[in-house]
Parts: sequence; structure tokens; C-alpha cells
Amino acid sequence: MSAPERAGLDLYERHAAALTGAVTACRERGYFTLFPETPDRHRGGAAAPAAGLASFRAQLGQAFELDQPGTLDRVAAEVSPYTQEPLGVDYPRADVDALFNAAEAAMSGWARITPRARLGVCMEIVDRLYDRTFEIAQAVMHTAGQSAPMSYAGSGTNALDRGVEALAYAHQAMLDVPSEALWERRFGSTTIRLRKRYRLVPRGVTVCFACATFPTWNAYPAMLASLATGNAVIVKPHPTAILPMALAVRTFRDVLTGAGFDPNLVTLCVDTLDAPIGKALVRHPRTAIVDFTGSARFGAWVEENAHPALCFTETSGVNTVVVESVDALEPVLKSLATTMSLFSAQMCTSPQNVYVPGDGVRHAGGRLSAAEFGEALAEAIATIGRDPKRAGPIMAALQSPATASLIDQCAVEGAERGRVLLESAPYAHPEFQNARTRTPLLLSVEAGARELYGEERFGPIGFVIRTRDRDDALAQAAADAKSGGGITAFVYSTDSPFLARAVEAYSASGAQLTCNLTGPMPLNFAAAYSDYHVTGLNPAGNATLTDLAFVAARFRITQSREPA
Amino acid sequence: MSAPERAGLDLYERHAAALTGAVTACRERGYFTLFPETPDRHRGGAAAPAAGLASFRAQLGQAFELDQPGTLDRVAAEVSPYTQEPLGVDYPRADVDALFNAAEAAMSGWARITPRARLGVCMEIVDRLYDRTFEIAQAVMHTAGQSAPMSYAGSGTNALDRGVEALAYAHQAMLDVPSEALWERRFGSTTIRLRKRYRLVPRGVTVCFACATFPTWNAYPAMLASLATGNAVIVKPHPTAILPMALAVRTFRDVLTGAGFDPNLVTLCVDTLDAPIGKALVRHPRTAIVDFTGSARFGAWVEENAHPALCFTETSGVNTVVVESVDALEPVLKSLATTMSLFSAQMCTSPQNVYVPGDGVRHAGGRLSAAEFGEALAEAIATIGRDPKRAGPIMAALQSPATASLIDQCAVEGAERGRVLLESAPYAHPEFQNARTRTPLLLSVEAGARELYGEERFGPIGFVIRTRDRDDALAQAAADAKSGGGITAFVYSTDSPFLARAVEAYSASGAQLTCNLTGPMPLNFAAAYSDYHVTGLNPAGNATLTDLAFVAARFRITQSREPA
Repeated sequence: MSAPERAGLDLYERHAAALTGAVTACRERGYFTLFPETPDRHRGGAAAPAAGLASFRAQLGQAFELDQPGTLDRVAAEVSPYTQEPLGVDYPRADVDALFNAAEAAMSGWARITPRARLGVCMEIVDRLYDRTFEIAQAVMHTAGQSAPMSYAGSGTNALDRGVEALAYAHQAMLDVPSEALWERRFGSTTIRLRKRYRLVPRGVTVCFACATFPTWNAYPAMLASLATGNAVIVKPHPTAILPMALAVRTFRDVLTGAGFDPNLVTLCVDTLDAPIGKALVRHPRTAIVDFTGSARFGAWVEENAHPALCFTETSGVNTVVVESVDALEPVLKSLATTMSLFSAQMCTSPQNVYVPGDGVRHAGGRLSAAEFGEALAEAIATIGRDPKRAGPIMAALQSPATASLIDQCAVEGAERGRVLLESAPYAHPEFQNARTRTPLLLSVEAGARELYGEERFGPIGFVIRTRDRDDALAQAAADAKSGGGITAFVYSTDSPFLARAVEAYSASGAQLTCNLTGPMPLNFAAAYSDYHVTGLNPAGNATLTDLAFVAARFRITQSREPA
Repeated sequence: MSAPERAGLDLYERHAAALTGAVTACRERGYFTLFPETPDRHRGGAAAPAAGLASFRAQLGQAFELDQPGTLDRVAAEVSPYTQEPLGVDYPRADVDALFNAAEAAMSGWARITPRARLGVCMEIVDRLYDRTFEIAQAVMHTAGQSAPMSYAGSGTNALDRGVEALAYAHQAMLDVPSEALWERRFGSTTIRLRKRYRLVPRGVTVCFACATFPTWNAYPAMLASLATGNAVIVKPHPTAILPMALAVRTFRDVLTGAGFDPNLVTLCVDTLDAPIGKALVRHPRTAIVDFTGSARFGAWVEENAHPALCFTETSGVNTVVVESVDALEPVLKSLATTMSLFSAQMCTSPQNVYVPGDGVRHAGGRLSAAEFGEALAEAIATIGRDPKRAGPIMAALQSPATASLIDQCAVEGAERGRVLLESAPYAHPEFQNARTRTPLLLSVEAGARELYGEERFGPIGFVIRTRDRDDALAQAAADAKSGGGITAFVYSTDSPFLARAVEAYSASGAQLTCNLTGPMPLNFAAAYSDYHVTGLNPAGNATLTDLAFVAARFRITQSREPA
């Protein structure tokens, strides 16, 4: 056994309990985590946040050092949504073929070691990423515009848990194949005994696209699933959010090097908005797997053009809410307002369309007309926006300047086709006075104005949609989720038969449904090891984080047999 | 619980031990079977063969009754390779959209029952197919041209075992997803408790293409994998080999009806050679999954055009043999000659290209020159052909008249580019005097004549290829398997380091390697539950019978959650 394989197996031993716990959690789907979600419980102690911040600050204005092959020149384009100043970090732009050459060369040794050794190295990578959570969280904040708590928990600990979840499935799928077997059977009067050996063979090079607003959350599972199954990974970050992935790639490479493997198993491939290389990467003859997170439009192109590469996508969500009846209005409005404001609705799980029966919403105290409901929701959102100290950690910042323009454009269209329930405006961020902020725009429209709400309007743009009645509300919401691509869905109803119909309708639409939830948990919170993210049954993507299908085809099986 | 679901669960109980045994066998990969391979051990007893033959004969010249929707007219085109007379059986040709409508309507009830109930019905279908093994074997003989023993064992019992193998993986993948979970976590000072329900949702309608020479062997696993995971299946048999699949479809439908389900979950879609509908089925907007077995050319088209449907293919094999050194020549020549003659090499696993070092083959008694080896192999094959009683059960009949033309064309090309080691000629079948028979053509060529041997020459056409030396033999054989699509590969060597290099080379080529095998087992025998068939790493197909990847993506997962 080679020294690197031994090192990998040692790492497997070190992390075996954690990985086994994750495997069990995936099967049982109860609560599980390896990483506490609150920063004060980080194992680095009280000094860790400041150290992470210092590391991040030390990087600003500097060249990002990444010792990988094929560097052509250096590019820099990131601007912090909080300061609206350039980060001043430049990255090596690589010759694509050089990265493929290096990736393929690196795979041979990696593919040959036992799956457990690869899993051990991958678990160690996760562990080392956890060490750097604060630094990576700063990078996420200042590229994606997430709040500090979300950068830490959503893009840090939860993203790592989703990565381990992918490793748990890789563990299961790979260990399902024995390394050898003895087979024995009679043919006529002769017994044939064959010793059979099975080998897992990776597909090849994975190209992993990371998105601008939530880069690590989808990339970690994809990178780890591919790497654990023996493949190399070329990471293509969004040009406006490179730093989080650059830090991650460097960590992957450090751990690989430390264990004695070729670090070119994981490389970074940056481009610019002016000269995008995404299509060339998807079409590259040596691309074996594509993992894509990003826009629905480009995602559809990727799905159509990835062949013969395997293709896993998560694009965007037309996420719908049906409010049929409630006991108490206040907690529902508060949960909806908070979740629609969370990270300025720049999450693929953010609710966008709220469908209300034309005859209003029943509640314990009577019935609220559809118009009144829209106004109440607008007021609940406005309340958050009026308090900068609350708005900051909830709404955070806009990742892209284009989102502000989209909001303004939607406001004009909304005023023509319906009514503006709540104007969008910048709010004064309590910490960053130059932050690119906007409170949510809320529009009231009649059902049928689908040119406005039938697709994802990326950013803090919501619709209250008046439908004929409650059945119409459910039918239209589920239909829009099916055609536009719903990832999440939400229903409020005190009527059990109606709820049962909603469960049916959204299962058919392929959107994950949350019923009657109120309280401090964001409605769109997706729990690792418990919530399946994206069904593949509508245009929001073709892959699920995480199920067996997400990993089982990333490797193949070869065999040899000989008389025993 | 509905009566059909109850019936399905009862069937699951009845077959649980068998299915559990299959699941264990898949994990351990030792010998396992549910169906004895010799006809005399069929549970139907001594009367079963005659009853099967009588059923088959009663069908000849008659309309095939299949109570399925959308019949437009009836078509008949099958000709027995043994009698070269039309079977005279006509089949309902269906309106494609009517089949899709019926399939989708049938799915709703089927998709909603528990996975175990579906697995129970599928195991019962296998059991009922086993009852009809003799009848279906006759149908295979008189359409595909297989021998009676192969029709029974290969297309009967072994095909059923491969079907159960697919069900074992479907069992594993589906039962990996719990039906519900309780999830509980603190958010601040509040504990959120959610009851989560998970549901398996089928992809949709599967179109399953069955091939002309081995229809049931690939179709059973595909049909059962899709059906067990909740999908409907439209079976598209090759127009020259409809009867085996028509009998199978009727059995599927009978069992479904008997258990109270809509039989339109499985329908038959026939076409004619003059008006093929394969492309329209692949491109049909409601096709969700394609399972294809057939030619490499059409298979490549299917892979490129199936999107957005999932696509599983097995096409053809350029199967290679390297003879480097042996202890005794005789058993090697006998095994090679038999396997190259088996079913006139009309199996996707039949060896075609034998690579011999230019300096000959070392054996215990000295060294045989490459030319001598070719002559010895030719003589070993000729020996079989000279004895009709041996040739009949081994060589069987040619499925298609086109194969005879191809043999003659290859003989001409071979004589120009090399040397004819063994002429092909009809042999007198001991039972069927009009049988369409040909003994194998064996050609001797120099390495480099790839226009002759670089792709599959379907039928009894073999090549002895003289290479520079043993390393050149292995390199060329493995390269041809990689580029042409090798499913199986065979190496004979008494030199361990050479064998180890062969294991490496063929693993990289994606061909399943058999080393130094002699004796009564056909070299290309593929054992259910033990041998993985097709790797997906070369053009011979993208799917493996059977691994988790063959089933895990045939269903998706939706979920709902609500406060507990």
C-alpha cells in the first residue's frame, strides 16, 4: 500500500464516526450536524472570528496565491456589495487544456486507492474547511452580499454538512461494490471457480460551476461527491464571486498535498464577465461530469449540451405560497415577511409568489380580504425594513447592481398590470454605509399576469396574486411551480382535506412543501441530511442534494475474473 | 390501504425471501440463482416442455391477442431462422399517443403504493414469466435463432435472474428513502419540530427497445427496474423478434390486472422495418426514460437525442482476445473455438478479434507461430462445424439474412487484406433442414487492418490479428476495445506481470476481463448477481446491468413537512 493511501485510510479512521453518523442520518432523516451553526461554538474559540477577519483583510488588494499549472495571466473583478469597492484580489487565469491535462494526470493515483482512503481525505478536507469558516464567510459576505450570520451558517457550517451528506451517499454507493468475490458453479460435471475482482473507475474530469450568491452550498457537495468517487474537479466560480471558491480550492489542494496526492485533482478556472468560458468548459471533449448552479437560462443550455458528460443542475426557483386559512394571522405574516426579506430573496428557496383566494383568507377572527392580506404582508415587510438593525442581518445586501435595476423595472411593470403594495428603497445598513441595499418590492396582481411572476425575478421582488378561490389558488400555484420551476412551496391552511390536496399537487409539481410553519425557523431553511433539495421534476434543476442518484453514476465498475 | 396495494404487499411477502437473497447476492457477488438453468429442473415437471411447445405452435398463424388501447391495424413480419417460414403471427400496431395516454393514466395509482407493493407485483411477474419459460424460449428460437438450450437458459432463466437483480437494486435504492421522519432543532429559545414525509415519484413513461437476437435479456431488467420504481413501460421490440416480447408484455399485463392494477402500465408498440418508429419514440415529449439495446449506430443516436429523457444503452461489442502464453494449447483453442461459434457470435459478448504476438504463442511444449496459431484455431472451429449434432446447439441459426451477406462481404475483404483461415458455409442443422446456418468465417490479418476489425462485424466473423509482440498485442487489443466498444475481453498468459498489465489496460478500456479460462463454461458467460455487464466507459453502452446507477435515477423524491 502506498504512503498516500495509508494516509487516506488513517484519515478515514479519524473521521469514521462522523461519516457513519452522517450515513445513518441520511437514512433516518432526523436532525444531525457535524458543525454547530453559531459562531461562538466554533472549536477555534474566541479568537477565531478575528483571525478569520484578519486573514480575509490581509488578502484584500493582494494577488491570490494558487500554485496550479497553466497560468496565462491574472484577473480581478470582484466588488464588495457592502463597500461597493473592489476587493483588489487577482487570481490566476488558467489555460483550460493545461487544467484538463493536469487533472487527468492527477487522477490515476487517486482513482486506484480504496474508496475509504478517498473518503478519509475528503472528510479531512471538510474538517480543514471548517477551520477556515470565518475567513470563507468574510469572502462570501464581500462577494455574494450575504449577512455575517448567513455567511457563517448557510455558506459555512450548513454547506459543509451538505458536503458530508454527499460523502455519506458516496460511501454507500461505493461500498455497495465489493472489491472481490469467489464465484463457483457447476457446468455439467465440472465445477468452475472464479475469483472476481471489481474496481471502481471514475468518470473523468468534473467541471463544477459555482454561483454568485451562494457559491459554497452547492459546490461543496458536488466537488466532494466527484472527488470521493475518484474524479478530478475543475471549479469555475462566477466571476463576481471567486474568493470563496479560491479559498476552498486552496484548502482542497493543501489537504491533498499533505496526504501525498497530486493537488491538481482540484483546480480553479476563472473567467471574466466579458470573456466567459462556461460553454467551452461544458463542451470540452474531456469534460466527463458537469455540476452547474446558476441561472435557469444557462442551466437549460447546460442540460441540453452537456452530453456525453453527465450533468447535474440546480437553477432557480419560482417558489410559491398559498394562504388559504390560518388560526392567527400575525405569526404567518411575520414568517412570510421575514423569509421573503431574507438575503433580499436571493436564495433559490426564497418564496416569490403568494396566491390568495379572491374571497380572502379565513382566520380565527374572521376573514381578511385578498387586498387586506396584501396590505398586511406589505406592512410586515416594511416593519423589518424600517429598523436597520433588524434589516441588516435579514436583508443583507444585493449581490449585483443589476438586481436594483430589475426591481425598478418590475415596479413599473407592476404598477401598470396591478398595484405596488410596497415600494423598494435602499435601507441604511447598520455597519456598512455604502452597502448596496434594497428593501423588498411587493406587487399586487391578478392571476394571469404571468409575464410578471411566471418566472423567477431574482431579488427582493414579491407578488400577491389574487385568484378566484382557494382551489384556484392551489391549482395556479402548483402549475406555476411545475412550469416555472419551484424548489420550495408553502401552504397555510387549517383545513386538512385542503392540505392533503396541496401535498398531492406539489408532489406532482416537484416542489418541496412546507405546511403551516411559523416561528423563528426561516420557512425556506433546508436541513442537511433531512431535506431533499430540488426534485428534478420541474425546470429548477435535474439533481437532488443529496440522493443516491447524485453520486451513483459518478463512477463506473470494471472487473476481471480468473480461475481460483 | 387499497385492495391492489394489499395484493402487492401480499406478493411481496410471498417473494420476500427470494428478493432478500438477491439483494445479498448483489452485495456479495457469489453464485446465486432463483431459477435452475436446466429444463429438466423446471417446476412444471416433465410435461412443461411439451406444453410450452404446444402453446407456441398454437399461436403460429394466429392473431396475437393483446387487449391494449389504440390499435390502428395489425402487422406481421417474423420469419423463423429455423424454418425460414413466416410465423404468421400478427400483432396490434398501436397509435403512439394512445399508448402514452394510457401509460400516464395507469401510473397514478401505481406510483402511489408503497415500493414494497410494487416490488411484490414485479417479483410475481418474474415468477409467472418463469412459468412460461418454455413457450417464450420457443418464441426466442424462432425469431432470434438461438438454440433450444440457449433460448431456455440464456433468454429464460438467466434473463429472469438479471431481472430480479434489477429489482434487488430497485429495492435497495427505494428503501434507502424513509417514508417519514421527525426532525427537531432549536432556533434560539424555540424548538421546531417538523414531521416530514417523503414520497418516491416516478420519472414517467419508459420506452424500452428490445433487440433482435437477445430480446429478453436486456429488456427484463430495464422493464422491471422502471416498473418497480413506479414508471410505465412501452416496449418496442425489433420488428423481426416481436413474439418473445409480446408474450412477456401479456404476462406483465396479466399479473398487473390480477393484482388490481391498470395493465396499461406495460404495453407493446410494434413497428415494421419499412416504417420504423424508434426515433419518434425517443423524441416523444412524454418519454421520460429510454432503455435501448441494439446497434452501435442507432444507440449513439439515441444517446445524443434522448434528452431530456434519461437514457440507458447497451449496443455492441468489439470483444478482444490476447493470447500471449499458455500451458496447454488444446483447452484454450477449444474454449475459444466454442465461444466464437456460440450462437454464431451473435451475442454482444462474443469475442471477435484475437491478437497474437508476431513471435508466436509460448506454450508448455514450445512456441507456436502466429500463423500456426491461426490455423490451429481455424481447425478447432472447423471441428465443431463438421459435426452437425455438435454444431446445432452451439452455432444455432443466423437471426438475419443480412448476416450471411456480411460474412460473404468480409470474406472478400479479408482475402484482399489478409488471408482466409476458415471459409464460412452453411451447415446441416440436425433438426431443421431449412435452418439459416453458417459456420464461422475466420480471417488472418496484420494489425492495422482496422477497417475490417475495428468495429463489430455482427455474426460469425472472427479475426486473428498478428501484432508486433505481446505488448503490442495487449496495447492494440485494449485500444480497440476502448475505441470500438468492448464489453468482454479475454487474456491467456502464464506470466503474472503481463496479466497484471492486462487487468490495468482493460480496466482503462472499460471491458470486463476474463483471464486464462478454459473448460465447459462459455468464456463469455455473464453471471447474474455477480458479473457487471457493460461499464459505460466505452461506446458499447452507457449503462451497467446492474448497478445502483441503473435504478437510482428512475425515480425522484418529493417531500412535505409540517409542525409535529
